Amino acid sequence: MIKSNRRKFIITAAGLVAATAANGTPIMEKKGKYLAHQVYFWLKNPGSTEDRAQLIAGIKTLRKIETVRKLTVGVVAATEKREVIDDTWGVSELALFSDVAGEAAYQVHPIHEDFIKNYSHLWSKVVIYDSSEV
Amino acid sequence: MIKSNRRKFIITAAGLVAATAANGTPIMEKKGKYLAHQVYFWLKNPGSTEDRAQLIAGIKTLRKIETVRKLTVGVVAATEKREVIDDTWGVSELALFSDVAGEAAYQVHPIHEDFIKNYSHLWSKVVIYDSSEV
Repeated sequence: MIKSNRRKFIITAAGLVAATAANGTPIMEKKGKYLAHQVYFWLKNPGSTEDRAQLIAGIKTLRKIETVRKLTVGVVAATEKREVIDDTWGVSELALFSDVAGEAAYQVHPIHEDFIKNYSHLWSKVVIYDSSEV
Repeated sequence: MIKSNRRKFIITAAGLVAATAANGTPIMEKKGKYLAHQVYFWLKNPGSTEDRAQLIAGIKTLRKIETVRKLTVGVVAATEKREVIDDTWGVSELALFSDVAGEAAYQVHPIHEDFIKNYSHLWSKVVIYDSSEV
C-alpha cells in the first residue's frame, strides 16, 4: 500500500513538471547557478519594425541549441528615462547556460552560425555582457 | 482507493513545489512576460574583492522588494574574450519585474533608497538596460 502510493507520486510529479513546461510558462528550474549571456543589438535600420521583427525571430531560433537553459528576447522597455539608462539599442537577448562550456558550445553550434549568416546584416553594433551568477 | 490516491497527489505536488522554492533553487515560474532591469556596475576600486563582496551583498538586499519577481547577481564570466564583449565592469544585477509599474515601485522603494545611500560609494559608473520581453 505504501509502495503503491509512492509509485503514484513519482509518476504524477513528473507528469506535472512536463505539463507545466509544455504550457509555455516561463520556467527556469534547473538547479545550479547560471551563466548569463546578455546581448544588445543596435539595428542598422532602427526605424524598421520589419527588421526588428526579423531579428527577434532569428534570435528565437537559438533556443534549439542544446546547452541553452533559457533564452528570452526583449525590446527597450518603457521605464522612466534616466541618464544611466542606455535605450539606444533595438533588441536584447538573454541566454542562460549552466556554465562556460555550455556558452562555448553555443558559439560554435551550427544553429548559431546560421543565425550569424542569416541575420547579421540587420545589426550595426552588438555589445555583450557575460555574467556568472554569484 | 482512487480518491485516496488523488488526495495524496495533491498534497505531495504542493509539497514538492514548496520544497523546491525553499531550497533556493533558481525558479522563475510566474506566468506572463517580464521586464528585465539589467544593471552593470563599475567598481571605484576594481581590485578590491572586499568592495565587490559588499556590493554583491547590497544588491541582494533588493530581493525583499515586493515587485521583484527574481533578482540575481553576477560577476564577469570566464568566457572567451572577444571584441564585442564588455568585461570592464565589476558586478551585474538582473532583476525581473512583471511590468513597468513594478520596476517604478522598486526605484522609489525604501530598500532601494537605502541601497543607494549605503552602497553607491562603491561604484564609479553604472549602465542600465531595461528590456520588455517579446
